[in-house]
Amino acid sequence: MERLERQLQFLLELDKQKEIVRQTYLADASRKEGDAEHAWHLAVMAFLLADYANEEIDVLKTVKMVLLHDVVEIDAGDTYAYDTEGSKTKRIREERAADRIYGMLPEDQKQEYRALWEEFEKRETPEAKFANTLDKVQPVLLNHASGGKSWREHGIKKEQILNRNRTTHEGSETLWDYIRTLIEENTGKGNIIE
Amino acid sequence: MERLERQLQFLLELDKQKEIVRQTYLADASRKEGDAEHAWHLAVMAFLLADYANEEIDVLKTVKMVLLHDVVEIDAGDTYAYDTEGSKTKRIREERAADRIYGMLPEDQKQEYRALWEEFEKRETPEAKFANTLDKVQPVLLNHASGGKSWREHGIKKEQILNRNRTTHEGSETLWDYIRTLIEENTGKGNIIE
Repeated sequence: MERLERQLQFLLELDKQKEIVRQTYLADASRKEGDAEHAWHLAVMAFLLADYANEEIDVLKTVKMVLLHDVVEIDAGDTYAYDTEGSKTKRIREERAADRIYGMLPEDQKQEYRALWEEFEKRETPEAKFANTLDKVQPVLLNHASGGKSWREHGIKKEQILNRNRTTHEGSETLWDYIRTLIEENTGKGNIIE
Repeated sequence: MERLERQLQFLLELDKQKEIVRQTYLADASRKEGDAEHAWHLAVMAFLLADYANEEIDVLKTVKMVLLHDVVEIDAGDTYAYDTEGSKTKRIREERAADRIYGMLPEDQKQEYRALWEEFEKRETPEAKFANTLDKVQPVLLNHASGGKSWREHGIKKEQILNRNRTTHEGSETLWDYIRTLIEENTGKGNIIE
C-alpha cells in the first residue's frame, strides 16, 4: 500500500504541471499553452510520426520521455527558449527539482523516470534525439498556425530560431525539412525578423 | 508529403482538445481541467500504475488509447458523467465526430486509431478495461484532492458514483479498492450525498 500511496502522491504533484504556462499560443491564438497540454501533444506526435525518426525508436520509451520531460518545471519554472539569463541557471534549478519530484516515487520508478529525463537532456540516443526534435517541431507548428503570435510578441530573429534548432535534424530530417519551410514562410511574412 | 500534411493537419485539429473543459477541478481547485490535460494525466497513470491492472496489458496500446480517447469531444463536447439527457445522444454525436476527425488521417492510421477508440468504448479487452478504470479513478483522485468541489457543486449522491463505477473493478481491483475508500471518506465529510 505504501507503494501505491507514493505513486498517487507523485501523480497529484504532477497535477501542478497543468498550471505552468509556456510562451507558445494555442493554434487559434486564444491563449498560451500549458505544460501538460504540450506534453500530451508531443506524446501523440511520438507515435503518429514515429516513422519519420532518422533511426528506429522504441515508441513506448519515447512516449514516456515526452510525457515526463517537463516535470522539473514544477519547481524550476518554464525557461523561455530565448531567455539567455534564465538559461544560465536552468540546469542547476532543474537538477534540484528532479531530486525532489522523482524522489517521491518508489525507488525502481524513481530511477527509471529520472534516467529517462537525463537521457532526454543528453540527446544521445535515438529516442532522446526524436523526443527533442518533437519538442522543437511542435511549437513551430503552433506558432505558424497562430500567425506567428509568440514570435512577434518577443521580436524573435530567424537566426535565433535556427541556432535553437541546430540539432533538430538529428531526430528527423523529414520533420526538420518541413518546419524549415515554415520558418522561411514566416520570415517572408514578417512574423520572424530576417 | 501528402501523408505528412494529413498527419500535421490532424495534430492541429487535436489542438482544440486543449480548450474543452471538463467538470473536474485541478487538485488545488483553482480551475477546471481541460481534456488534453486529463488525457496526459491518464497516459502517465497507464505506465506508472500498469502493475495494478487485473490482466497483463500492452502498455503502449493503453497509452495510445487514453491519449486519444476524448478526441471525439472536439465535435461532440464533454458530456458530464451525471448528465442523463446528454448521455442519451452521446453515442451518435461521438460516432459522427470519429468519422470526421479520424478521417483526416492516412487510411492505415485512421483505421488503427479509430479501432482503438471503439475498443476503449466497448471495454472488453484488458487494455480497454484498464484505460476505462484510469478514466474513472483520475477524477476521483482530483475531486478528493480539491475537497470534493465538483461533487458538491453538482450535489452528487454516493449512489450515482457507485453506479457510474460499477465496472471500475474490472480494470484493477487494487485501484478500485483504493478509490472506494476515498468515496467513503468524502461521503463521511458530506462532500458526497449519502
